[in-house]
Amino acid sequence: MSLFIRNEIREMHGYQPGKQSQASKIIKLNTNENPYPPPPAVAQAVQSALESGLQKYPDPVATPFRMRAAELFGVEPDWVLCGNGSDDILTIVTRAFVGQGELVRYPCPSYILYKTLAQLQGARWQEVRYEDDWSLSDDFAAPADGLRLVFLANPNSPSGTMISPRRVLQLAEKLPCPLLVDEAYVDFAGESCMPLVRENEKIMVSRSLSKSYALAGLRFGFLVAQPQVIAELIKVKDSYNCDALSIAAATAALNDQAWLATNRAKILATRERMARQLAEMGFEIVPSQANFVWCRHPGRSSLELSQILEKQKIFVRYMNYDGWGDGLRISVGTDDQINICLDVLKSALS
Amino acid sequence: MSLFIRNEIREMHGYQPGKQSQASKIIKLNTNENPYPPPPAVAQAVQSALESGLQKYPDPVATPFRMRAAELFGVEPDWVLCGNGSDDILTIVTRAFVGQGELVRYPCPSYILYKTLAQLQGARWQEVRYEDDWSLSDDFAAPADGLRLVFLANPNSPSGTMISPRRVLQLAEKLPCPLLVDEAYVDFAGESCMPLVRENEKIMVSRSLSKSYALAGLRFGFLVAQPQVIAELIKVKDSYNCDALSIAAATAALNDQAWLATNRAKILATRERMARQLAEMGFEIVPSQANFVWCRHPGRSSLELSQILEKQKIFVRYMNYDGWGDGLRISVGTDDQINICLDVLKSALS
Repeated sequence: MSLFIRNEIREMHGYQPGKQSQASKIIKLNTNENPYPPPPAVAQAVQSALESGLQKYPDPVATPFRMRAAELFGVEPDWVLCGNGSDDILTIVTRAFVGQGELVRYPCPSYILYKTLAQLQGARWQEVRYEDDWSLSDDFAAPADGLRLVFLANPNSPSGTMISPRRVLQLAEKLPCPLLVDEAYVDFAGESCMPLVRENEKIMVSRSLSKSYALAGLRFGFLVAQPQVIAELIKVKDSYNCDALSIAAATAALNDQAWLATNRAKILATRERMARQLAEMGFEIVPSQANFVWCRHPGRSSLELSQILEKQKIFVRYMNYDGWGDGLRISVGTDDQINICLDVLKSALS
Repeated sequence: MSLFIRNEIREMHGYQPGKQSQASKIIKLNTNENPYPPPPAVAQAVQSALESGLQKYPDPVATPFRMRAAELFGVEPDWVLCGNGSDDILTIVTRAFVGQGELVRYPCPSYILYKTLAQLQGARWQEVRYEDDWSLSDDFAAPADGLRLVFLANPNSPSGTMISPRRVLQLAEKLPCPLLVDEAYVDFAGESCMPLVRENEKIMVSRSLSKSYALAGLRFGFLVAQPQVIAELIKVKDSYNCDALSIAAATAALNDQAWLATNRAKILATRERMARQLAEMGFEIVPSQANFVWCRHPGRSSLELSQILEKQKIFVRYMNYDGWGDGLRISVGTDDQINICLDVLKSALS
């Protein structure tokens, strides 16, 4: 039977998400989840959606969420596309723009799903390396044969660094194709490319509720792009890609901007302390604008450190990028979780 | 910007799901939803999933559901793939088997999404007409250049008819490619192709919880296929395609087989009465094995009848298939809803 599977699929490994242990004693700092529970309004919204019943199909375009997001970002609802997590958004965008044999570009090292999405389309991919200071040269905007779509995680994973909106606009203007700015982590940063969507129709901005709204379990993301783009993307998505409970929950979460501000402040405080203490232990740290810290220790193997942590039931993400190098991406947990993690690292290094 | 969208997408119309009015006074008999609320265990399961928090990513393969489904169908969990609705399953299967320019086959008239899925892949599609008695000739299993995937909705929509498992096996054996048997409506029928999955690795069976478990709002479907197939399909799905609430809810629903039996009996009783009364009014009826009835009146335009019903806030599905003809697909609602619908039709015809 595997003979019937498309060659592109058979030959690929498939994207490997970070370990999702369901055990409760684990300190999980490997997939950038929020360590705090979501806004309380989420549970109430789910409850009331449950009460109105699940037997009917949900709103195909998640109208209540679109309206709230439009208000928040100063656009009209038809500038917003909702997805079953922002991975669904990235999939929809890839399928809409990229045909078999065409080219997808993204920076390296970055979110490893971009390559998978290209592979699934039977497309080619091109990785443009970040400069040593995590900036992007004009190569990132150069024309290339069959180039159809460019991804930019901003803030980037694993580095947590950002390309400024001014530079993103410059790059988009030079590019011969659309640019998807993946802002999954932007609520932990100081700037956003959202205002650029009005200025250049090639720029699309995706967001996730997984990290900053503590809703990874819910699967909700969205895209902001000009309405003529959104209209085409709606043809590509599954008819009912968001369910009734998640539409209600995501809308309630977005409504609680005060919760977001408080949660963000907590995460940022822990992040700064964590970065400082890692630096004091001798780690090379990249200043992060996300809810994780990327680090390497000049004297110890990153792989080994991750294994030592795992033995103590602390999961961090060991990343190793072909031809680039490796390191540890440690999510910002609660202060208690981070203290335990730092203690283990300290004793491993002493 | 629309210049950047793939030609295949730009030129297509996109799948149009049945109208999803959120108004409450509507009698909605147009999208084959279950008129009764889902099993009570669903709300409890959602409640307890909410309490364990939504900040972590869900189980990527929905293990609890896989285990329960495996038990129910006498297979191992790795024979089961879970999806965000069975549309997600159909999308995954299409992307895994069909490349650009290759061929998808399905019967006609049938579920109109199959064509959309082919279009989204930049693939070709071939429609094989049902015979007058809603059987399928050997043409359905004939080799064809680039043929990669065949869909069969069984029971079929809009007819509600079935191809027997024995005949499905015959067709699969002749086919040079996999056959997806879409059993979205099978819980309202007398037979299923599920046992065939063991017999022929080309046969895959998809199911939905939308109709028979009254969970259209939740988005949950699944596929049963041999494990070497499932392993490839997992590479194609989004990493976390099912959310924590829907995994819990769907598992709870599947657990309540007594609820399913009772609900099914109610729907079937209403369906038989409805078919009888429509026939008495002069409608040409196709005996249905699903939760809807397909009918045409020799003396009145189907479009006109659907408009008369809509004025009375009764939505049924008017379907018009190119080169084949039209008719009304009326979902089995509650007895009260069906009585109102039949009364309006009776007075329209008198």
